[in-house]
Formats: sequence, structure tokens, C-alpha cells
Amino acid sequence: MTATFPARPGWAQGGAATGANYTADASAPPWRSGSAERPLQPVNLLELEEAAARVIPAAGFDYIAGGAGDEWTLRENRAAFERRQIVQRVLTGKVVADTATEILGTPIALPTIVAPMGGQAIAHVSAEAGTARGAAAAGTLHTVSTVATLSLEDAARAADGPKWFQIYLTRDDGFNAELLQRARAAGYGAIVLTVDVPIVGNRERDRRNGFVYPPAAAPRNFLDAAGRLRPIERAFQPRLDADSIAFVRRHGGLPVVVKGIATAEDALLALDAGAAAIQVSNHGGRQLDGAPAAFTVLPEVAAAVQGRVPLILDGGIRRGADVFKALASGADVVALGRPVLYGLALGGWQGVQSVFQHLEDELRTVMQLAGAATVADIRRTRLYG
Amino acid sequence: MTATFPARPGWAQGGAATGANYTADASAPPWRSGSAERPLQPVNLLELEEAAARVIPAAGFDYIAGGAGDEWTLRENRAAFERRQIVQRVLTGKVVADTATEILGTPIALPTIVAPMGGQAIAHVSAEAGTARGAAAAGTLHTVSTVATLSLEDAARAADGPKWFQIYLTRDDGFNAELLQRARAAGYGAIVLTVDVPIVGNRERDRRNGFVYPPAAAPRNFLDAAGRLRPIERAFQPRLDADSIAFVRRHGGLPVVVKGIATAEDALLALDAGAAAIQVSNHGGRQLDGAPAAFTVLPEVAAAVQGRVPLILDGGIRRGADVFKALASGADVVALGRPVLYGLALGGWQGVQSVFQHLEDELRTVMQLAGAATVADIRRTRLYG
Amino acid sequence: MTATFPARPGWAQGGAATGANYTADASAPPWRSGSAERPLQPVNLLELEEAAARVIPAAGFDYIAGGAGDEWTLRENRAAFERRQIVQRVLTGKVVADTATEILGTPIALPTIVAPMGGQAIAHVSAEAGTARGAAAAGTLHTVSTVATLSLEDAARAADGPKWFQIYLTRDDGFNAELLQRARAAGYGAIVLTVDVPIVGNRERDRRNGFVYPPAAAPRNFLDAAGRLRPIERAFQPRLDADSIAFVRRHGGLPVVVKGIATAEDALLALDAGAAAIQVSNHGGRQLDGAPAAFTVLPEVAAAVQGRVPLILDGGIRRGADVFKALASGADVVALGRPVLYGLALGGWQGVQSVFQHLEDELRTVMQLAGAATVADIRRTRLYG
Amino acid sequence: MTATFPARPGWAQGGAATGANYTADASAPPWRSGSAERPLQPVNLLELEEAAARVIPAAGFDYIAGGAGDEWTLRENRAAFERRQIVQRVLTGKVVADTATEILGTPIALPTIVAPMGGQAIAHVSAEAGTARGAAAAGTLHTVSTVATLSLEDAARAADGPKWFQIYLTRDDGFNAELLQRARAAGYGAIVLTVDVPIVGNRERDRRNGFVYPPAAAPRNFLDAAGRLRPIERAFQPRLDADSIAFVRRHGGLPVVVKGIATAEDALLALDAGAAAIQVSNHGGRQLDGAPAAFTVLPEVAAAVQGRVPLILDGGIRRGADVFKALASGADVVALGRPVLYGLALGGWQGVQSVFQHLEDELRTVMQLAGAATVADIRRTRLYG
Repeated sequence: MTATFPARPGWAQGGAATGANYTADASAPPWRSGSAERPLQPVNLLELEEAAARVIPAAGFDYIAGGAGDEWTLRENRAAFERRQIVQRVLTGKVVADTATEILGTPIALPTIVAPMGGQAIAHVSAEAGTARGAAAAGTLHTVSTVATLSLEDAARAADGPKWFQIYLTRDDGFNAELLQRARAAGYGAIVLTVDVPIVGNRERDRRNGFVYPPAAAPRNFLDAAGRLRPIERAFQPRLDADSIAFVRRHGGLPVVVKGIATAEDALLALDAGAAAIQVSNHGGRQLDGAPAAFTVLPEVAAAVQGRVPLILDGGIRRGADVFKALASGADVVALGRPVLYGLALGGWQGVQSVFQHLEDELRTVMQLAGAATVADIRRTRLYG
Repeated sequence: MTATFPARPGWAQGGAATGANYTADASAPPWRSGSAERPLQPVNLLELEEAAARVIPAAGFDYIAGGAGDEWTLRENRAAFERRQIVQRVLTGKVVADTATEILGTPIALPTIVAPMGGQAIAHVSAEAGTARGAAAAGTLHTVSTVATLSLEDAARAADGPKWFQIYLTRDDGFNAELLQRARAAGYGAIVLTVDVPIVGNRERDRRNGFVYPPAAAPRNFLDAAGRLRPIERAFQPRLDADSIAFVRRHGGLPVVVKGIATAEDALLALDAGAAAIQVSNHGGRQLDGAPAAFTVLPEVAAAVQGRVPLILDGGIRRGADVFKALASGADVVALGRPVLYGLALGGWQGVQSVFQHLEDELRTVMQLAGAATVADIRRTRLYG
Repeated sequence: MTATFPARPGWAQGGAATGANYTADASAPPWRSGSAERPLQPVNLLELEEAAARVIPAAGFDYIAGGAGDEWTLRENRAAFERRQIVQRVLTGKVVADTATEILGTPIALPTIVAPMGGQAIAHVSAEAGTARGAAAAGTLHTVSTVATLSLEDAARAADGPKWFQIYLTRDDGFNAELLQRARAAGYGAIVLTVDVPIVGNRERDRRNGFVYPPAAAPRNFLDAAGRLRPIERAFQPRLDADSIAFVRRHGGLPVVVKGIATAEDALLALDAGAAAIQVSNHGGRQLDGAPAAFTVLPEVAAAVQGRVPLILDGGIRRGADVFKALASGADVVALGRPVLYGLALGGWQGVQSVFQHLEDELRTVMQLAGAATVADIRRTRLYG
Repeated sequence: MTATFPARPGWAQGGAATGANYTADASAPPWRSGSAERPLQPVNLLELEEAAARVIPAAGFDYIAGGAGDEWTLRENRAAFERRQIVQRVLTGKVVADTATEILGTPIALPTIVAPMGGQAIAHVSAEAGTARGAAAAGTLHTVSTVATLSLEDAARAADGPKWFQIYLTRDDGFNAELLQRARAAGYGAIVLTVDVPIVGNRERDRRNGFVYPPAAAPRNFLDAAGRLRPIERAFQPRLDADSIAFVRRHGGLPVVVKGIATAEDALLALDAGAAAIQVSNHGGRQLDGAPAAFTVLPEVAAAVQGRVPLILDGGIRRGADVFKALASGADVVALGRPVLYGLALGGWQGVQSVFQHLEDELRTVMQLAGAATVADIRRTRLYG
């Protein structure tokens, strides 16, 4: 069965400028991404964006930073956090003990993991290897994307921290099964099945820039036997349902995190299909512009799930206070995306480590001022507003 | 019976600058509207406005783009869409099949038709003929205005797609009856009776610009036997009620769409008078500034009508997401105004076709991400907020 | 009994810069206010402010245009109107018949009268005479201020339209009684007792400008027998209550409009004391900054008064739509302040007339689009929001 | 027991730029703070900030003016006041009698006291002595900070007005007890125990500026026997609870005001531990960014306390209207912070006096227009919104 998208040429077809066109153009000039290797001392994670924009080539930066359509959801992912407040609690006698927690049995030093992001050579020469090493150094887990620059085996080899593999199902079930088996063989601890890209969102920055992945960032998982890239985007499977989850469970043999859930209905479908965890996400505002913020729909999903599986939230996390609010609203951990890439671009693996260290510092300060000594305490905290 | 508007000279009398003064001034310099004929590849429909402002003479552009008073309602027509959100649904197993639907028995390729707009030669030399051809090429229906530049017969002849004729009732019932009979004879499938211009709104841009229709755009339906324009504005009938609708039904012998409904009360009056469809509209913010957005009042009208006749919504549609939200809130189809004229100005009939194709592309992306395979699915979707 | 305001020098004492210091300084340079006599054709009343700022000396303009403190209430008086909307009603079969109404038995051509404003020579050489003549020409009523530039007798003589006299009670009851008797003798039809200036508000613009009334605008009602100005501000009576109203009724022998009511409590006190009408007002945002908009408190006052006396609203009226909303929310008429002075500055009496004609034109357009044929219809209209 | 803050270098450790690093650097250039001694005639207290920024060295100004994180709570402390309004009441027959009140038995001329602020030599050469003298001249109480530039004895000696001593508990209970005994001996009337600095907030301006207290402003209370500064920040006690309050009561022998309460829970803990008063505060937005405004949480605290002890509010007070709103919402008095330092910087003790006089003038005007003759009347007033 095939999707019936419009037959005429145009962006919805993955034409020249969708931002999801991976056809390597060998005649393109060399890509000049970041190459520094150094720790960072950011005043906050927000300022990393501006700094990264000076290191990553403009079209690549736009690909990373941008969202769909008017970028309303991109902005709303941040704005939603401002509408709830953390109340100062200072007579509890508690002192911050620990930010450690676990997710699907994997201990992590702080309740923040790395969200899957493709083509990281766009940001830094070390690509996913840098992110893997930085996450491990920070004591947390990272997720390698199907469309990573490095092959899933190379990414897995880069560091010995905990890691998950993210998959987009293509229309070729043989290829899907092969990827899942490779992931298990490479030692990944779970499969993150992304379900919110049945079609690539309307990324207007990419269309204006005519952005395509540069050869240096081309996703190695899609190299064919002859070392050529297979066509990718049109191969994505738009039809996703309980069977998709079952397929991934069966062929991966690993716990399945279903990523891209934004409603109670989809959460219950995922649960019934055996999801081991649910990642509440709107793909960082890159898919359905006009969707509510991830943080906004989190309580609805949490109410539906009732704690039967862990919840991960991504979308707009930039501050320790955001991590705190997400956990106080039902998330078990949060996933961090763009700031990780900015840290990578600016400082390689050490930059990635710095990003997580900074976020942990902020989180500790918030915890202390809110009277939460542990991550478990955060989850019991009431918010205001 | 006559209206008792103030006797002193002034804009409420249709003086020099009402934007509804159609007296051709033969000594005016030639009007230089758009004349290009080409397909467009807009990144979005919003950016067409700025591009069109470079092609359409300034006073003409202001006439098209502007609204009444402070233009609060003009802006609110857009802003109201932002207050409701579309929830991402991605585990339904559905794939977009089709954007086709029908309105009053006429099949259309997407749930968006052309709103009536007068004097289209202001925007492009092909005037309503270009719009007719573009709409037909896009597989949709267009509505020809009473005050079209072309005669209703010439506009009807321009393309063989489905078409409706929009009428403003004048105080001359003989002329009204004549227009309706001409419309039926010319093959129009329905009459759109506009009821929200009992008096021309306070168009401040037009008054500042001293805008009058240029001779090139003068409405041919109002040429008298000697080829001279009849006075138009003062001739408009301010008294509109159930009898007006009955008159149009009787003399037109066609289904009557009552356009300009914004309350349950008026909707029920129209239904009782035999309206075949209701178009919820505030005339694009050009009439009563300070009125709520069309999208805001849609649920009230839908609740009153209870599905007895189809609902059309116009006002502020610029995105596929807006179409989706309107349909999910009770509209059967939406009508598109200004962006059509911008497409016409920039690319003639091909520009108009491009506008609808782009909107369809956006709508398909939204549908897929919201789990709606068909227009009927959209109508069953819940919004957020 | 005397008020116990602070003894140290300072603005609360009416020092050099309170804007309410009327001590004429004979050595001041001549005041150059407007002197044009011509009709105006404003596109809207809002634009008059900028034009008037070019005609009225800067400190005088600031005195007129400014409000207290942060000018929050000044802005809010306008903003409050935006939060309610007028619904388009177009199938009623009604055609605007008339904007005529009456207030305390006096017929007026439109439901808008002139609010009392002092020292009008600041704006135009004709001072209150110009306003009186313009209001009469527009068919409406004007209110002459205690601190008018012209004596109440000269102001009364200037035109034969309906007029009220506004009084601030001083601490000198003999003087108060004398003013009231002079007002009755001069033919005023009612006394407007202003109760919201027990102390002059914190007018920061005036303090920055060191503004005092120029000799040309000095209030003639306060000339003593020797032609010298009596000290005014410190003489104002801060203690106002039911007895104040009774005093004015007894000595004026005229209906008393109590102006400056913003709560149900004060409204009931005024009613019990025999007020003939109530003017809901926060003195145009010039007194208590941080008070709600006049339009915001109108429903509370209307609910308390229950139609026993007419309600007048002032504060922020600039559009016909504002007049409409005020009447639909319980006001019988509205009073217009600053725009009248701007019209006066720019065109003398003809400018004042133009301001009212323009407002009437806007109101008629709104009425027609809202399905209201008369002022009585407006009062029965529901608003939205 | 010790807190387990992260072991790596970084701002959460009080590195080079925390704004709470008091290590005097003898090689620093001389600090040039304000030295003027003169009364001020501010138009309002808001404009003092800009003027003070021209007198206080930039990094010192930022230390004073800045808040934590995005400074959302800093701004919100002001914005929250705008969401409630004061209703004009003008027929009560009341005239402002008095702004006098008392707090913990100490009569004060107005319901506004000085909040504790450290290192006042940053702003003016007279440091806390100027503030003490100015507050006394204005008839109010001031609070001397643990980290005042002057020793608590010198600060106490500077003026004979009422004074409180504010304490941060360190991890050294001997030193804490010593400070408390010195405070009692020096004649302070109460101890203000600050509980909202278990850890120093994330002051980003200070980190950007690399701000440390200049030697001239070093806190003399922390000089050791050899005249050297003891390390301060790391010595702060993060564990605070009922026992902390009991300790302060026991060793101080004075009433204890618990400052930094923002919830009902903490308020009840403080009450149970014998607090004599509660100060609702978020430390001027300098600690937990994203916390609600102090004014926002005041009603919750007031409802919990039910009048058993007095409530003091600080955070965002700049206007007489703010004082009024705070008292009408449950506060007994308010404390003023930054504007006092600005007045000090610009005019020494006379500047401080001017700040309070100005605030009293504004408050009197508001009281008169709201029908409140006394502070007790304010407390009985209803707000709007």
C-alpha cells in the first residue's frame, strides 16, 4: 500500500528543499562545521544558540534551529513553561542530595537524556561520536538517530555510556528489520520508534535555503552495498499504528520507546501495543505547526498512562527550571535536543558534557530553592499557575 | 423607502474616498496592474502579500489588503486561529487519501473555494477571467462578484469550472431581477447574496488614498445601454431581511448562499427564508471593525444551524492549518479571498492555481500529522484550547 | 476641618508643577494656542491628537493629553473597549433612522455630549466659547468647567445650545453657593458635581514640564473683585459625601449630575442623596492611576442603579464603536473630552462640530452593521466577549 | 552534615562570578560609588534606577538591579501589581488623616520599611549609615544585613531610629550565636532570619560581569580577629527548618521575622516555630527565577496565617499604589529595597529620606482617591480584578 501524496512536483514531495533530502551532491563545496574540542562555561543554554550560529554554516544552523510553518509551536514549546511557576519552599530542612534517577532500568546522573537528532556532522566534525562521548562523560544516556551521520555501529562504538537507537520505519520492512537487528547487535539498550514523521513537516527555512544534507553529513545507515546513498525520504512509512510497534518489538527484541505522542488516545494505543515507555514530543516544533506545546499536553498523557510506563518529555527544555516543571507535571525524564548540538558545535564532546553539567547546576539550584532533595521529591512538588 | 444617512457631505455618503466609488474618471493615468503569467512556488501564502504590494499600485493594494477602522477585526480574523490548536495524532494507521469534498452538490478537489471579490483588474490584467481559469485548474469553485471588472457573462465564459454569482442588492429591484436572470442564463450554479454591506464600512486606507476604482477596473455589470457606468454605491439596498432572500430565490431560480452571517439569530433568519447555505463572514474585516473574528463566531452559527445546510467560512484563511481548524469547528468548506488576488497579481491564472495547490499541500501535511485521511475525518477531529 | 496633607513642600501640596496651579504669572511669554476656524475632515478622531500636538504648546498639550502616574488607567480606558466586541447583525430589515436621544429631558442629536474641561484657552483662542458654539452646531450639549478660562456667564452667552455647569466644591461654602447661583442665573440646565478630585492626581508630565496655567487661560470664575486670581487648588474641598450633593441641590436649584462614580457603593450614595444622573468616570485617567477603566466598571454601576437615573460614561471614547459599546453596556449617553479640545485647537467651533459629526458618521455605520436603527436599539444589543 | 553540591568548579560553587563572592581583592582599583548628599525630588521612584545607573559602577549596579536567570520573576514582581486595580471611592466623606502604623510594636510614619540589603558601600560612601539616617529621618524602620559593609555595631550607631538585624545562618553555629548576641547588644529590635538563600541564586549578570564585592564594600561582620575576611558563601547553611528559627529565637532573645516565605506550608512551619512576623518575599527575584510574584502568593500566605502574626511583603514595590494594593491584600507593611539604594546612591541619607517621602506622597494621593483615611482603612478595601 502506498500513500497518495500529490503527484505534482513540490515541497510536499521532498523536492529540492525539504530539509529531509539526503541525496549527497558530490560537487558541493566542503562543509565547514565546528571542530573545537573544549569545555564550555555557558551563562545559560539559551546563549549557546547565538554562539553556535557563528560556527555552523547558515543553512545547517537553520535546519537545526528552525521549526515548521510559522514556528508557532517551536516558540510555544518554550512559552508554555512560563505559564506555570515553581513555588519557593525553604523551610523543609532538605538539602539537595542527588539528581540521579533511572530510565528503563538504566541509571543516569541527572533526569535529562539526549534526544535523537540526525546528521550531527552538520554541527561538528565528531558528529554522533562527540555526542556519545559527552553524554557518557556527563553520566547520561544518548539516543542515536536512524539518520545519524555515523553508522549505528560506529556511533555505538564511540563511547561506553548507555545508548538507545531511534528508528524511522521505511516502506521496506526488510531494511527495517535489518536496522533493528544491527541495533541490537551493536548493544543499544532500547529502540525509540519515532511516530510523528509520517510525512516531513513544512520546514520553511529549509525550503528558503534549498537545504540538503551535505555529503559530509550523509546518513551512513543508508549507504548501499556499493557505498551509495539509498533514497530515503520517500521511503518513509506514513502508515503507523499498533502493528508498527509490534514489528519493532519483534525484530528489535528490545524495549520500545514510542516517541511523538501528544494525546491520550495515541498514548493508550502505544500502551496496548506494548510500548515500554512513551516520549511526549512534537518533534521540537518541526512537524505540525499549530500543535500545543509538548509541556501543555504532558498532563493529558500522564493522566492516561497512570504511571504504567515511564514518560519522557522533549520540546523546549533550556533551563533547570524547565526540567523541574516537566518532572513535577508527570515526566520521568526529559530529553534535550538542540542545546546538545550547540554544545557539540562549540566544544565537541566536552561541549556536550558542559551542557549537561550546566543544566544539572541549574537544576540543583532550583531543587534547593523548591525544597526538593531528590528527583523523587521533584515529582511530588505542586506547581503554581 | 430610503435610508436616512446624514445629509451633509462626508465619507459615510460615499464621497471621494470610500473605496466603493466606482465613478470612472477618464482623465486618470493608466492603471498598471500585474500582467505576469506563471506558476508560483510560494513558501507560504503570507509572503505573497508583500510580493503583491510591489506589483499592484499602492492605492489598489491598500484597497485589497485593508480593513475597516483600526483593522482590529482584520487582524483578529487571523489571531483567532492561533487560540485553538491541532493535536498531533500519529498512531491511527491512516494515510491521507484525499482532500476532495463537495458543496451544494458540486465536487471540488479541496475544501477551499474562491470568495467573491470585485474589480479584479486592480490586481491583474486578466481580472476575473484569470481567477476563474486558475480556480478551475485547481479543481475548485469560484465566485464572481457583482462588482467584478468583467461582465458576469464574460467571467462565466472564461473557464468551465464550477462558479457562483455574488449579488449585492441595489434599490432597483428591476435591475436586481435582471442581474439574477443574467446569472442563471450564464450558467452560474448558485447565487451568493451578500448581506453584510448594507452600508460600506469605514475603510480608512481608502479615504486617505482618495481611492476610486480606476476606469480599467470599473464594474461592467453596471454599464448602462450607452456604455456609461450607473451610480452604484448609493444604490445599494441597506434594508435586508428574509424578503431579500426570498426575492433572490424567486428571481434567480438557484440555490442561495447567504454570505455575511455572524450570529445564531441571523443564521436562523436565513434558514427560515430558505437559504441553501450560509457563509460565515465579516467581509474580511472590511465592514464592522470591532466585530469578533469569523472563526470565533463559527461555533455559535454551527450550533444554531445544526447541519441543516452547509456552512462556508471566510476570513483570515492563510494556512492549511486554518482550513483544518475551520472544518473541525463546523465549516464544510472555507473561502479564500486576498491570497487569491495576490496569486493573480503575481502570476495570472497560474498564480491562482499555485495558491490553491500550495494550500492543498499544507492541508495534506496537517491532515497526515493529525490523523485525518479525508475531509470527513477532519470534521470529526477535536481541537485543543 | 481641614485635610492633613503633608506639610513639607512637594507636589502633593500643589507646588510649582501640579498642573492645577492657576497662579497667573504676568511675566510669562504670550501663549500661542490654536486660532484656526475651519471644518475638519478627520479620517478618525485618534489622528487628531498628533495634529493638535503641533498646534498647542507642548506643556499645554501634555496637560491635556496626559494622565496620572504611569498612565496605565489612561491607556486602559481605551484598551477595555477592545475586550468586548460588537456582533454583526444584518438580516433585521432595520435601517438607521436616527441617532437622537435625550438626557435629563434635553433632546440631543447624538448620544454624545461634551465633558467638562478647564482652561480651554490653552487649546484655542476662542476657549469655551468655541466649544459651546461647536457643540450647539452639532446638536449636542456641552458642560462648562468651574475652571473654564471664560467666566460661566461668558461661556453661557457664547451659544444657545443646551449647557450644564460643572462645579468643584471649594472649602469656601459662600463662594460655592455664589457660583451655583450664578450658574442658575446664567441659564445652565444642570449642575455637574465632580467628586473625583478631592486631591489633584499625580500628573507626572505636568511636574516634569513645570506646567502652570498661562495667564491667558486663567479661570475667570476665580477672579476676585480686584481682578486678581484667588488661590484655587488648596481651596478644593477634599471631603465629599451625601451632604455635598445636598448642598449643590439646595444652592443650585438644578438637577445634579454626580461625576466621578466608579463603584456601586458610591453610586448608591449618590442616588440616596438625590443625584439626578450619574457620570461614571475616572477623570480620563488623570486621577487614580491603576483604577480600572471607566468602561470596565460601568456594568457594576448600572446594576446598582437599575435605571433609576440616567448614566453618563466618559473615558476613552474615540470611535463610534466605543459609543455603541458603552450604550449597550448600560450608559444612556457618553461624554467626550480630549478629542473635543483637539478639534477646537485645530478648527475652532467648526472643528468641534466636525468632531461630533465624524463620531456620528462612525456611529451610524456601526449601528447599521449591528442592526440597530435607533439609540434605543443599541441599548438592547448584546455584546460579545 | 554537609550539602552535596557538585564537586566540579562552576558557578554553583561560588566561583569567580557569583555575585556572592566576598573575597576582597586588594589589587582592585578603587571603587567609585555615589557621594552626593542632597534631597531628591523624583517624579517617581522608577526613574531613580536610570539615574543611579549613572552613579554606581556598572557591575555594582547590575548586582543591585539584577535578578536570577531570565529575570522573569524580577519583572513579574512588578507585573503582578498591574493585574489588580484600586477602585476609586470618593463619596465616603473621608479625608486622609494619617499613614502611620506600627510593626511588632514599633510605630512608623508610613507602612513601608527598609528591606535588608548587603554591601551598601557599593552604592554610596556612607553605606548603611546613610540608609539608617535617611530611614530615621523619614520616620521608619530599617533592616541591617548580615553582609552589610558596616559592622552591625557601626550601622546601629548611625542613627537612633528603629532597626532590625537580618541574619543568614552560616554552618558555624558559634559564629551565628555570636552575631545574634552582638545584634541584641547593639540595640536591634528584632532579628530577620532570611530563609530563601540556602544557595545563592543564578545571578547571570554577576557571572557575566565577574562581579565580586569590592574591598570597600566588604562585609565587616565577617572580619576575623586579624582583620581578614572569613570565607562566606560556602559557609552558608543550606539546611533551614523550624530548628533554625528556634536557634535564632534562643540566641537572639528577640522577636524573629522569618523572611522568604512564599507558601502556606512554609508560613505554617514558621508560625509553629514561633515566628513573630512573616516576610513574604522571593528575594527580589534574585533567587528562584520562575517563582510567582511575591504579591501573587501573598493571599495564600495571608489565608494560612489568619492574622496570627503580622505580614511584611517585599518585591516590586515602586508606587504608592503598590503599597496600597499590598496592604489591601493582607500585608501589614511592605519593605522597600532597590529604590532605597538608588536614593542612597544619588543623595546619601537625604536621598533615602526623599524616597520615603515621595512614596508617602503617592500613597496619600491614592488613599484619598480610594476613600481610605488611615492604614486600617486600606486593609479593609476591596481591590478589583
